[in-house]
Amino acid sequence: MKVREFADGCEVAQPLLVRDLDVRHRREGGEYLKLVLADRTGGVAAVVSDEIDRAREVCRPGEVIHVTGRYSRRQLTIESVRAAVSSEYSIDDLLDGPGRDVEQMEADLRALIGTVQNPHLRRLLAVMFGEGTPIWALYRDAPAAKHYHQAYRHGLLEHCLTVAQAVGAISATFPGIDRDIAVTGALLHDIGKLEAYEVQGGAISMSDHGRLHGEIALGYFRVRRAIELLDGFPPDLAQALLHIILSHHGSLEHGSPVVPCTREATLVHMIDNLGGRLGSFDRVEKELPAGEHWSVYDKGIGAGAYFASRSDEAEREAA
Amino acid sequence: MKVREFADGCEVAQPLLVRDLDVRHRREGGEYLKLVLADRTGGVAAVVSDEIDRAREVCRPGEVIHVTGRYSRRQLTIESVRAAVSSEYSIDDLLDGPGRDVEQMEADLRALIGTVQNPHLRRLLAVMFGEGTPIWALYRDAPAAKHYHQAYRHGLLEHCLTVAQAVGAISATFPGIDRDIAVTGALLHDIGKLEAYEVQGGAISMSDHGRLHGEIALGYFRVRRAIELLDGFPPDLAQALLHIILSHHGSLEHGSPVVPCTREATLVHMIDNLGGRLGSFDRVEKELPAGEHWSVYDKGIGAGAYFASRSDEAEREAA
Amino acid sequence: MKVREFADGCEVAQPLLVRDLDVRHRREGGEYLKLVLADRTGGVAAVVSDEIDRAREVCRPGEVIHVTGRYSRRQLTIESVRAAVSSEYSIDDLLDGPGRDVEQMEADLRALIGTVQNPHLRRLLAVMFGEGTPIWALYRDAPAAKHYHQAYRHGLLEHCLTVAQAVGAISATFPGIDRDIAVTGALLHDIGKLEAYEVQGGAISMSDHGRLHGEIALGYFRVRRAIELLDGFPPDLAQALLHIILSHHGSLEHGSPVVPCTREATLVHMIDNLGGRLGSFDRVEKELPAGEHWSVYDKGIGAGAYFASRSDEAEREAA
Amino acid sequence: MKVREFADGCEVAQPLLVRDLDVRHRREGGEYLKLVLADRTGGVAAVVSDEIDRAREVCRPGEVIHVTGRYSRRQLTIESVRAAVSSEYSIDDLLDGPGRDVEQMEADLRALIGTVQNPHLRRLLAVMFGEGTPIWALYRDAPAAKHYHQAYRHGLLEHCLTVAQAVGAISATFPGIDRDIAVTGALLHDIGKLEAYEVQGGAISMSDHGRLHGEIALGYFRVRRAIELLDGFPPDLAQALLHIILSHHGSLEHGSPVVPCTREATLVHMIDNLGGRLGSFDRVEKELPAGEHWSVYDKGIGAGAYFASRSDEAEREAA
Amino acid sequence: MKVREFADGCEVAQPLLVRDLDVRHRREGGEYLKLVLADRTGGVAAVVSDEIDRAREVCRPGEVIHVTGRYSRRQLTIESVRAAVSSEYSIDDLLDGPGRDVEQMEADLRALIGTVQNPHLRRLLAVMFGEGTPIWALYRDAPAAKHYHQAYRHGLLEHCLTVAQAVGAISATFPGIDRDIAVTGALLHDIGKLEAYEVQGGAISMSDHGRLHGEIALGYFRVRRAIELLDGFPPDLAQALLHIILSHHGSLEHGSPVVPCTREATLVHMIDNLGGRLGSFDRVEKELPAGEHWSVYDKGIGAGAYFASRSDEAEREAA
Amino acid sequence: MKVREFADGCEVAQPLLVRDLDVRHRREGGEYLKLVLADRTGGVAAVVSDEIDRAREVCRPGEVIHVTGRYSRRQLTIESVRAAVSSEYSIDDLLDGPGRDVEQMEADLRALIGTVQNPHLRRLLAVMFGEGTPIWALYRDAPAAKHYHQAYRHGLLEHCLTVAQAVGAISATFPGIDRDIAVTGALLHDIGKLEAYEVQGGAISMSDHGRLHGEIALGYFRVRRAIELLDGFPPDLAQALLHIILSHHGSLEHGSPVVPCTREATLVHMIDNLGGRLGSFDRVEKELPAGEHWSVYDKGIGAGAYFASRSDEAEREAA
Repeated sequence: MKVREFADGCEVAQPLLVRDLDVRHRREGGEYLKLVLADRTGGVAAVVSDEIDRAREVCRPGEVIHVTGRYSRRQLTIESVRAAVSSEYSIDDLLDGPGRDVEQMEADLRALIGTVQNPHLRRLLAVMFGEGTPIWALYRDAPAAKHYHQAYRHGLLEHCLTVAQAVGAISATFPGIDRDIAVTGALLHDIGKLEAYEVQGGAISMSDHGRLHGEIALGYFRVRRAIELLDGFPPDLAQALLHIILSHHGSLEHGSPVVPCTREATLVHMIDNLGGRLGSFDRVEKELPAGEHWSVYDKGIGAGAYFASRSDEAEREAA
Repeated sequence: MKVREFADGCEVAQPLLVRDLDVRHRREGGEYLKLVLADRTGGVAAVVSDEIDRAREVCRPGEVIHVTGRYSRRQLTIESVRAAVSSEYSIDDLLDGPGRDVEQMEADLRALIGTVQNPHLRRLLAVMFGEGTPIWALYRDAPAAKHYHQAYRHGLLEHCLTVAQAVGAISATFPGIDRDIAVTGALLHDIGKLEAYEVQGGAISMSDHGRLHGEIALGYFRVRRAIELLDGFPPDLAQALLHIILSHHGSLEHGSPVVPCTREATLVHMIDNLGGRLGSFDRVEKELPAGEHWSVYDKGIGAGAYFASRSDEAEREAA
Repeated sequence: MKVREFADGCEVAQPLLVRDLDVRHRREGGEYLKLVLADRTGGVAAVVSDEIDRAREVCRPGEVIHVTGRYSRRQLTIESVRAAVSSEYSIDDLLDGPGRDVEQMEADLRALIGTVQNPHLRRLLAVMFGEGTPIWALYRDAPAAKHYHQAYRHGLLEHCLTVAQAVGAISATFPGIDRDIAVTGALLHDIGKLEAYEVQGGAISMSDHGRLHGEIALGYFRVRRAIELLDGFPPDLAQALLHIILSHHGSLEHGSPVVPCTREATLVHMIDNLGGRLGSFDRVEKELPAGEHWSVYDKGIGAGAYFASRSDEAEREAA
Repeated sequence: MKVREFADGCEVAQPLLVRDLDVRHRREGGEYLKLVLADRTGGVAAVVSDEIDRAREVCRPGEVIHVTGRYSRRQLTIESVRAAVSSEYSIDDLLDGPGRDVEQMEADLRALIGTVQNPHLRRLLAVMFGEGTPIWALYRDAPAAKHYHQAYRHGLLEHCLTVAQAVGAISATFPGIDRDIAVTGALLHDIGKLEAYEVQGGAISMSDHGRLHGEIALGYFRVRRAIELLDGFPPDLAQALLHIILSHHGSLEHGSPVVPCTREATLVHMIDNLGGRLGSFDRVEKELPAGEHWSVYDKGIGAGAYFASRSDEAEREAA
Repeated sequence: MKVREFADGCEVAQPLLVRDLDVRHRREGGEYLKLVLADRTGGVAAVVSDEIDRAREVCRPGEVIHVTGRYSRRQLTIESVRAAVSSEYSIDDLLDGPGRDVEQMEADLRALIGTVQNPHLRRLLAVMFGEGTPIWALYRDAPAAKHYHQAYRHGLLEHCLTVAQAVGAISATFPGIDRDIAVTGALLHDIGKLEAYEVQGGAISMSDHGRLHGEIALGYFRVRRAIELLDGFPPDLAQALLHIILSHHGSLEHGSPVVPCTREATLVHMIDNLGGRLGSFDRVEKELPAGEHWSVYDKGIGAGAYFASRSDEAEREAA
Repeated sequence: MKVREFADGCEVAQPLLVRDLDVRHRREGGEYLKLVLADRTGGVAAVVSDEIDRAREVCRPGEVIHVTGRYSRRQLTIESVRAAVSSEYSIDDLLDGPGRDVEQMEADLRALIGTVQNPHLRRLLAVMFGEGTPIWALYRDAPAAKHYHQAYRHGLLEHCLTVAQAVGAISATFPGIDRDIAVTGALLHDIGKLEAYEVQGGAISMSDHGRLHGEIALGYFRVRRAIELLDGFPPDLAQALLHIILSHHGSLEHGSPVVPCTREATLVHMIDNLGGRLGSFDRVEKELPAGEHWSVYDKGIGAGAYFASRSDEAEREAA
């Protein structure tokens, strides 16, 4: 049974991935384990009350376990737990991930890069995203966030590619935009996240660097250094590109040290924002119980989200 | 000579349109006339110090006058002024307007409407934009704003069409969006401006209705009434569409009584915002003296705007 | 025993109304029921730990149950529960409600309406509040809010009447106020709440309409439509009245699409505010344990409230 | 001719009061005088360009001068000026002031004080407002503000009396309010303004004390000292009253060191606010040219004010 | 074992001070005791589940108890508890307190006062801090806060002394500062806290006076009264000093009714702020588990705090 | 005569430095020159109305001119102007500058650097501030701002030195501060200003880099690059130092992409703030006319500043 199909009262007996583990006090003394278990279709809270020392050794974040228990009121009460054997599951059914295939995304990325005309930007993109380069290996795998949107492997690629595609598509609709700069800026805007996040056993956390320097300064440094190592890169072009990275949060209070002063920086900032906001709708809808139309208040949306007709329900019916 | 070609020290003798007239005090007593004159390429401040009573009769907003004088430091000091005769000018060279031809825009609009599949929305769009309907006549001509972007005849059509085209183009990039609702919402989002603005002799001002009710409530009422007169319009569809109109300013503090709770409302709001912001770059660049790269602080952009290479200069060279 | 008289350690055995029911997890697995029980004098949290499946069928919101248990630390631990029989209680002792008798409020309302001189406003008030009209039937019964003040049957009538009476009383103190417009605006300002809230079995919730359109747009539409159906209603009068409805939240960030620009709109907004704030004092005092002077921080007041001498204690002593 | 009757193009020759004088540079060198002249019905900007040294000696703030000149575009260009002789004018026609007669206000104040029952508050009010006491003499004459509302002699009395009357009237409408405390608090809430403002020759300015200590701390100190000198004043009563003074600005960001935590403090704060806001409408309407319905944006109102029918026009027609 | 040395899994059997006691519900019915126990090195949460009625009598805030139990996940699960006998502990090991010895602080204070030259300020300081005066007795013992920094006996002295020392040290670095005024203002700035807080059995709470008047008004009144009783105190000096007290929160929204307008007030405000912020680092570091570098988000710091090398670890190693 | 001694009505005939030149329109047509002239003691507005073409060639920013004219109402009306000859003036009397001698500041800087113990930081400081290095040459001369504080040659050195001295002095007062990191951070915090400002002929403006990247990112890049070129610089130390630079504005809305998370970053931020605020007092006092105690509202102070006794007056008397 897929996690998103769990319904009140159903009995569960299957392999699931451990995303998070917490040892909690009972308020009145004693302890229990609080887990987040998941497959590709979603996550579920779970508790273990008995033999927690033994369970604790099994339920390490990033591991696959086999559990039996009862699901009710959005929580799984675990009756038995053991390590899963690899023949019991396919890891691809358990890991969350992008809606698109990673090979497809890479192909789309290379196609998009192929539309960039400016030779200097092409050189820079080759340095950053060239097949076999170390940066590309990191970029291809990194998550885009800790919580909000695309908080999974390949999430950064998915996010930046989507923003860059939308930026590319819309560049012609409005006058005066340098499409090459805008698309390159969109592909590179979040590159500081390579250093700002750490991924350990499927768990995503901010690095010390991420917290003390911030992803914007980290991305600025990396791209400015890469440009300095390219002979004859035009200073004006460098300036325009770095301005996109520095200003892409859109305002000081959102952490950009400068605000967007150019059309290209404005475009990347606003499409990045749009992508994040619509990504929050995706995340919220995924977690919404079947039959409900309103989510609870979501910080990423700034409201409860409303889904008139549920796309997942249509899908299920079709299935 | 086109207004945007005026340079320090040049002598001017030509017909220009009067956009605005103000009788001002000299600080130390006496009066002078402060004008805004314009042709299609831009506007210029001008002053008349002598025989102002006679000049005042000639320089009515909306009229075309013939002036001689000297341009310096962004101001035209008028030496003589008279009414222009119609053989001296072509009105199309003098009126500001959209970048696109109105017939072309109408054709684009009808093409876009043709892509809407939902029969109820098609019926509604026919009521609002059908050729020969009174609403269409108003909508085709109305300005989009008093000051900021597209503050000229056909401006509303230009703005809504651009937003709707961009919304249509981007709908496929992100999952879960009902394109028909989003495009229809984009076309109708600003329809309250028909009542909110008054155009008199080329001057645009807010109506009492616009100030006391606001364009959002006016648009909501108009569309909800139109829907009520259509038999069998699905209530859910009405709700979704009206929510776009009500929430398109994006937040309470920007005047929407509700915030966007659906993907479609989020999309229309954010592309509307993007269109307005990029439109401010267009407006600012138009007024920027040749050779300058930075504008003064602009409220619509939230910063001074920077233009690395000036598109107008490229154009001129090409010409 | 009345709920507000419950004291630490007392044994409870009596009928109470179920206001709210929630099935909760124990943190360490298993479930229990969390209830809000109430009589007219207040509400109390309660828990059921045993036989929760049976209890769950009995404890439906809106039903009256008979419980035994022990009250301590502001919570009732239920030992036994069954459906109450109607001979055991009088429903009027159990339902929360306005401080004033509904017949008295209706009489007061009709008296206040009788003081309005303007014939057009009198016609409008007859349409909205005429005895036997469907709107009046709804208006008379509707609650004024989900949580904050007057969140009970007849609450809307109580709130609007109070605001309108205060507005009427104070109109003469300040110069330049059109009392008829102000009083009519006060009576109608919240009429959008008829569609914005849904009442089901004593539970109040926001409707989809309320969330997607907002009470202000709903009220604006209803009153503007009603006016359009009245022959010869002066447009200026309509504009002034509708402006009160649209602006009564006082500022954009509180959800009004326009801010009050007239004396009458300013007056209704500020007395509405005052009424809400003082209503929060009433609500907070009702729930304050005997002997305490300070409430916890209350969002409606923006502070903890202080009650130097407690009116309820005086009452009890008098009783 | 009254100042509010000045119309474009009219010739002026009459006595007027000098409210303000400023020596200004012409931008291109040289000087001129900028005056604010006034009678009881309003103020008018005026300029003197010739013989300014002589004019400067005549046009001292607080003095009455006789001017001839021409009024146009809201400014009076003065052709000749001399000191007025006292037989030429009645000072009461020239000084701005409250809408009500000061003797009437004093009588209303004493009547209102007479309704206060609490003997301790009566003693305190006798100390502060007793006929012949030095505080009363100051209070009776002081202005309520420098610019906004009631910025004239007797303005403080007018403002506090109005607020206290409204508070008294409305105390019965809402439950749980101690009318004696609320009315006394309303009468005393602004008493710190006695030290915070200085009046010199008709010009109102803030004192050093007012700027360095603030009117709230000054009022708190004065009333707390007065209470300490009264034997047997109940500490709870003192606390409640002083809380009203300290919190009457309603929030920290408006300069109250504490926010209103009691019903009485909430009531005084909000009616004080209402009085100020409606007072701004009065001030704005007074200065609005005949025939106009919209004022410019007014900081005290937070919007442009709209006057559908102008009360002054009705008055004039009646005259 | 010291509290800060408690580590996961260790068994505890020792005397500890009760700082706080709360009787809590188990969510599913029944009660347990939630305690905060402490020694001088820190505090620890603890729970009692059995025989809570008996335990409740023993565990009164301010008392010393002897407990046995097991520490895990930052909580102590108590197995047995009894009153401690005085021979079992030294109270100085259990009470939290300043980092410096109180006698040393008093000596430092007197030394600092000795550097003040102005005779009037010396007289005032003698009244407030003279040995044997009642104010000094209170000041010496009072805490500086309820929660944030220096929330313990002698905390006010510690805080004010530190601020005054830093102010004194830095006065020479910047031009134009009157050191005597600045140092005296620093010593007196928080004196309103004497009335704003109540200490009962080791528990610190705000008094009614503190909540209804605020510490700033209380301090202002006390110092202004003290000055009035000194003959010949220069009014300008009084004004400058009282301005420091009134403005030391730095802005209206932080509760100062006036903002700092003088160099001395600016200096005291900003060093007070710095002291509070750095004090929050101290508090946060004290509670941070060994081996961790990041604290959770702290409201006093406005971020999570980062400790690269932990000073306590260095200390321990050195010990 | 020194500029700060200019008094109403005095005749001026002397050399002055041109700080700023603007060609302005007379409102009613024609042009005049608006100048800012200065000597070391302050600046003065001045106008030229006649022969402006000739005057314009003489009055270039950065040049010294000889003027005659009349000073009145804070403006100098120029009657004649010519280039000054070098024998007429000493440039040191005309240039604004720090209160301290630059050689003395350099000596103080080297002394302060000498107190830094950490060898890695010493190496870094040698690279940045070593005598004869190109960075030092720039740093020594750069201004600290365009307008607010220390907007003159050597201003950056003066500002950073003062902050670093104060940081050094206060490091011992509070526990847990690494003085070496704090002092080095204070010296380097504003180093991005080297690229963010351009100085041309005495006029200070922001560079394109300054506007598009911001001084914080520029400083971060420069220091991080410098560190990368030093062998064996400890990563933790680099991180701590760079965090100070990135966070020294103290909050996102003031342009820091991260907020201070360490004691050292908190200290540098707050002393930087204090230095800026007190520097605004210096600037305001300098421009305050003799005999006045209150400045107008100053954005850097957030209030009007009050100067009880004027230090300049004392100085003059002493002179």
